Amino acid sequence: MANSVNEFGLIESIARALGDSATAPWIQVGIGDDAAVLQMRSGFDAVASIDTLVADLHFPRSAPAELIGYRALMVSLSDLAAMAAVPRYALVALTLPELGNEIGIEWVQRLAQGMAMAAKETNIALCGGNLSRGALSISVSVHGEVERGQAKLRSSGNAGDRLFVTGALGAAAACLRQGQLLPAAVDALSAMQQAYYRPQARFDFRDEIKTASCAIDISDGLLQDLNHVLHASGVGAELRSNAIPLGAGATLEDALHGGDDYQILFASAKEVAGGLCIGELSSTHGIRLDGRGIEARGYQHFNT
Amino acid sequence: MANSVNEFGLIESIARALGDSATAPWIQVGIGDDAAVLQMRSGFDAVASIDTLVADLHFPRSAPAELIGYRALMVSLSDLAAMAAVPRYALVALTLPELGNEIGIEWVQRLAQGMAMAAKETNIALCGGNLSRGALSISVSVHGEVERGQAKLRSSGNAGDRLFVTGALGAAAACLRQGQLLPAAVDALSAMQQAYYRPQARFDFRDEIKTASCAIDISDGLLQDLNHVLHASGVGAELRSNAIPLGAGATLEDALHGGDDYQILFASAKEVAGGLCIGELSSTHGIRLDGRGIEARGYQHFNT
Repeated sequence: MANSVNEFGLIESIARALGDSATAPWIQVGIGDDAAVLQMRSGFDAVASIDTLVADLHFPRSAPAELIGYRALMVSLSDLAAMAAVPRYALVALTLPELGNEIGIEWVQRLAQGMAMAAKETNIALCGGNLSRGALSISVSVHGEVERGQAKLRSSGNAGDRLFVTGALGAAAACLRQGQLLPAAVDALSAMQQAYYRPQARFDFRDEIKTASCAIDISDGLLQDLNHVLHASGVGAELRSNAIPLGAGATLEDALHGGDDYQILFASAKEVAGGLCIGELSSTHGIRLDGRGIEARGYQHFNT
Repeated sequence: MANSVNEFGLIESIARALGDSATAPWIQVGIGDDAAVLQMRSGFDAVASIDTLVADLHFPRSAPAELIGYRALMVSLSDLAAMAAVPRYALVALTLPELGNEIGIEWVQRLAQGMAMAAKETNIALCGGNLSRGALSISVSVHGEVERGQAKLRSSGNAGDRLFVTGALGAAAACLRQGQLLPAAVDALSAMQQAYYRPQARFDFRDEIKTASCAIDISDGLLQDLNHVLHASGVGAELRSNAIPLGAGATLEDALHGGDDYQILFASAKEVAGGLCIGELSSTHGIRLDGRGIEARGYQHFNT
């Protein structure tokens, strides 16, 4: 019976790999009942988002499982950071093929360890989940809190606001474009691979985002996500190409149109220390780069 | 460009199909930003669960999409009912293959309409989600509230408590066993098909479950789920076969070992009006049916 496991054994093995990242002072009931029970703070709104990462679309299945797990949680958390929320708890629905040599118990444990690392870095509790049999994918539902009425939306930008990003763009897209998605080892990532597998949900910018007029996370490309802000806020934007911070290996094209950056784009009427100013919101609709109109294409799952 | 759609068009089409089931007084921000923002009540704990339904494992992909959607939400909600929670909001991560004749825009709209029907019946808001390209599956993250400290666990049953179920068992398993999973039409379901496609999360039993000693939803079969209660509570159980309520077309075997019932099993020191008493918890470990030991097998996703 060595290495034999049933569903409940697999869940226990995951819970062990998660260790104390499955618990927190606000978790009343964690893994192991019908549902998790959480104590949320009064005076705060709940903030909630869900994302799915599908094997060989959002990550190569042969990548180290720790990196897949780390990335899956951080990518989802980026949506909370963009709302100016503090992370609280996450639920993970894991769909796994029949366990075998490629995806086995050890793989699942390493995936959980990668998630646990991201959870500890962001102080979120991985307090529940689900296992299903099917094509490999990971759905992560993330939940946080923000002071009542203080969630930062896409729709409240104003013409004249300066536009900021929280970090360099395009390195993850460059990694993908250069076919560099399989690292030599889990602890030997190039700078591009680091950008792809170890995105940082920018909770460190929460104070700046709270005072911003609007914010969005850049998951599908700077211009496409900027375009969501423009539509929601009813404004346009002027960008300066020489102000757009390029990540490792990135071209301007990678930074403008490539996805997977997970930096935050936000607008503010005031100067923001630490924010990288890339342009302004304007009353003229559309996006202009160095004064010329540019199309807001980016990543889309469905284009039929 | 007729019937042409991109990801954002598809999201808008889903939002239209959801209609007012996407909104509620407690939803501050719904579909269309990085995350949803919810006003939860003070003095209540949050209760959270996630489930994934995979095509051709948890539902036949050629079943009517309305029924798939309805079932997906109710199945997930059953976990909240088992905790004595009131439903509040749900997030849905939908993974779809390339849109075509089988799974197209209309299919997705009908799926959303089925979810909207289940949402209205249970007063939950479908306030956010995610679309991905991949093998057809639906992950639903459900969130509710329960009076602080009042969530009903599996672990608090006592020897001597009576065991109750909230309704007849085994009809969904009988439907599966008899190969009856494809109804003639969406509005012409047999009683067995009704049990499979239109399970009712038993929020109508919330008062009884609140006063119970422990509770669990019967998703993987009566005996297997009872066994979870017994392990968690450190007790055994005595069941009477002639007291187990059989659903349409169900044998005792279907009721004991079949999954997909989504009734609630709960224990109580007192008689419970409306509950169907099937036996008692006992200090002797294991499960006995009519005085003889019986194995607690049921549905498992992984058995390697």
